[in-house]
Amino acid sequence: MLEESGCRALVILAESSRDPFIAPFVGAARLHRCFLILPLEGPIRLGYFTPMERGEAALSGLELLSPEDLDIERWSRAGQAPWQVLASVLHQGLQRCGIAPGAIAISGLGPAGQVEAACRQLTEDGWSFQPGALMVERLRRAKSEADIADMRLAASGSMAAFRRVAETLAGAVEMEGELWLWTEKLKVENLKRMVAETLAAYGLEQPEGLIIAPAEEGAVPHNVGTPDRAIRPGDSLVVDLFPRHRLFSDCTRTFCVGEPSEALSQAHAAVLAALELAHQEVRPGITGWQLQESVCDYFAKARYPTPLSHPGTLHGYVHGLGHGVGFAVHELPSFRQEAEGDDGRLVVGDVITLEPGLYEPGQGFAVRLEDLVLVGEEGGENLTPLPYDLDPAAW
Amino acid sequence: MLEESGCRALVILAESSRDPFIAPFVGAARLHRCFLILPLEGPIRLGYFTPMERGEAALSGLELLSPEDLDIERWSRAGQAPWQVLASVLHQGLQRCGIAPGAIAISGLGPAGQVEAACRQLTEDGWSFQPGALMVERLRRAKSEADIADMRLAASGSMAAFRRVAETLAGAVEMEGELWLWTEKLKVENLKRMVAETLAAYGLEQPEGLIIAPAEEGAVPHNVGTPDRAIRPGDSLVVDLFPRHRLFSDCTRTFCVGEPSEALSQAHAAVLAALELAHQEVRPGITGWQLQESVCDYFAKARYPTPLSHPGTLHGYVHGLGHGVGFAVHELPSFRQEAEGDDGRLVVGDVITLEPGLYEPGQGFAVRLEDLVLVGEEGGENLTPLPYDLDPAAW
Repeated sequence: MLEESGCRALVILAESSRDPFIAPFVGAARLHRCFLILPLEGPIRLGYFTPMERGEAALSGLELLSPEDLDIERWSRAGQAPWQVLASVLHQGLQRCGIAPGAIAISGLGPAGQVEAACRQLTEDGWSFQPGALMVERLRRAKSEADIADMRLAASGSMAAFRRVAETLAGAVEMEGELWLWTEKLKVENLKRMVAETLAAYGLEQPEGLIIAPAEEGAVPHNVGTPDRAIRPGDSLVVDLFPRHRLFSDCTRTFCVGEPSEALSQAHAAVLAALELAHQEVRPGITGWQLQESVCDYFAKARYPTPLSHPGTLHGYVHGLGHGVGFAVHELPSFRQEAEGDDGRLVVGDVITLEPGLYEPGQGFAVRLEDLVLVGEEGGENLTPLPYDLDPAAW
Repeated sequence: MLEESGCRALVILAESSRDPFIAPFVGAARLHRCFLILPLEGPIRLGYFTPMERGEAALSGLELLSPEDLDIERWSRAGQAPWQVLASVLHQGLQRCGIAPGAIAISGLGPAGQVEAACRQLTEDGWSFQPGALMVERLRRAKSEADIADMRLAASGSMAAFRRVAETLAGAVEMEGELWLWTEKLKVENLKRMVAETLAAYGLEQPEGLIIAPAEEGAVPHNVGTPDRAIRPGDSLVVDLFPRHRLFSDCTRTFCVGEPSEALSQAHAAVLAALELAHQEVRPGITGWQLQESVCDYFAKARYPTPLSHPGTLHGYVHGLGHGVGFAVHELPSFRQEAEGDDGRLVVGDVITLEPGLYEPGQGFAVRLEDLVLVGEEGGENLTPLPYDLDPAAW
């Protein structure tokens, strides 16, 4: 990819070694600000900024560019502003890798002001830059056996949290139109706390948060749920968990305590049928967009608006069918009709979500069901085999 | 600050509304990629990229730049690369705020390749950029009463986790030179799991991780501790927790189960004395660097090397005394001798750490004691009033 791009190296910036652009390369090492240089030839090198992180840097198993190699002290003593230090350090790091000024692919996350000013300075010194994110996205799409094992672990913790939510909802007591847990009214925050504790017991974190969104709140897909919102009988309750161990898992279920409305029941049945359809169609060679078209077709026949029948619709089926998952919650393969540098075809070893949903802000309910799926030779393996029932008592 | 800089607006990019550069402005809203425009005159506006986030965006209470306002669909339909979309969106957003091409301060976190390419494009269109991080750092240093209350909450959860660690260590059983918890050998990962569960029960997260580093691992300050490392009697054990609610807390204690070595006991006594000295000296008007000098002076008299007596030393006292804490773990005020745009003087309402430590990689031990301190008229208030004892049984 570097050769095709005409670049001499790929530079990946990071504010933390957990950043999804650098995490695939650094193993167990835990650093703050750091960067990688991947030259056209020669070893990958990890640059870090303080000797206090020498132990962690060594854990990466990579060749290192230490603060001494990078002359950090010199730039600091010279009273350079942070963007100047960044420019000096990148220049020095590239030189240490034997890379003369020329074209560089750059990616990762960085402080925008420093990145802009440092690259402008480096451009004056003879360097030029082009976006390199797609190279990293392609590299990290191919997961090792250890990566897949890690995702299974994240999925298993996530499933434990779903079962605890189901158990809690099933045990809630209805009194005068409200749900109670022992002496406490059941609120979104009780469930969020419970999920966080369960995931923590599995060694999982939620760096991207979670969604526990009842009724009208769930009807806008990315509403995360207001902590003090009480959960009432008959409410739809969208629970979307995307915890991370080293890699992420991603799974959604929708519950309803008490009697669901006719419209909610119908939507649930339609979403479940759409999900089953998608599961059946997953195989190497098919594109995410083809899966999306199938599901849109199904929903259209069931008389729900879709992005194909009603572009920009805010009710019915309002989003894409899925996305790749790995070091980031959203990564390749893309399910869009056209995505830069990705033809969308599933390959063996891809881990994707399938997540049809129906959203009715006017009626105040939503259903989304999402599985995490490993693409194999013969089709998909569901990594989140949980019940789909609305009724938590059926779990 | 904008006027002084000659800029027409400050733009803050973010990959998540929890990013420390944007979090102070957006309240309870939880968004993925988004940005703020703070014009010289007129309201702050929040730009977001998908109608699925309209509900969360509204929770910010800010004026919004919706995906429709930003013409997101148009750029995507035109097949623009991500960096082009970013350039188009920023151009459109600034125009919507009535800002004509000119100088812009830019800050926050962004994808480095996109930021570089988008700013280069915008420069051709008549915009120019300068780093704006310092403006945000100055703004967020001044904390509201609600911010301080939130930090007290984070500190209280953190203290609960420390007490649980102490209780566990005190209850560990020594057998044949090893420590056991019931039928399991006591390892770093047991304690990390326990801390994560306790913090989760308080609604706290650890986006920056944690340090539980025994003996030789703790002797390099940023080593986070190897999960399967057994904790042995006589080991120093550095526990540094920096969880976040809305804002962060930051606190460190050092434990030793069983008999500490003479050198470890002496180091602990010296670090505790240094911490008490620093606590006494905290007051409005003093600089972090003056506190650092006092502590270096103290350690030098006790015959430990310091950054003043032995620049670059890797044993003895090897780092700065503290830092501001808030929406980021490390923020203003700075404790450095010279920091860009900050004279280092403490002001009422600052929240800082005081964290002297002694590190002996050659002898395989370390001691760090760190309190979170609120600067008041009369001096500092310790927000993490926990025991300092090495012996967990004394807790």
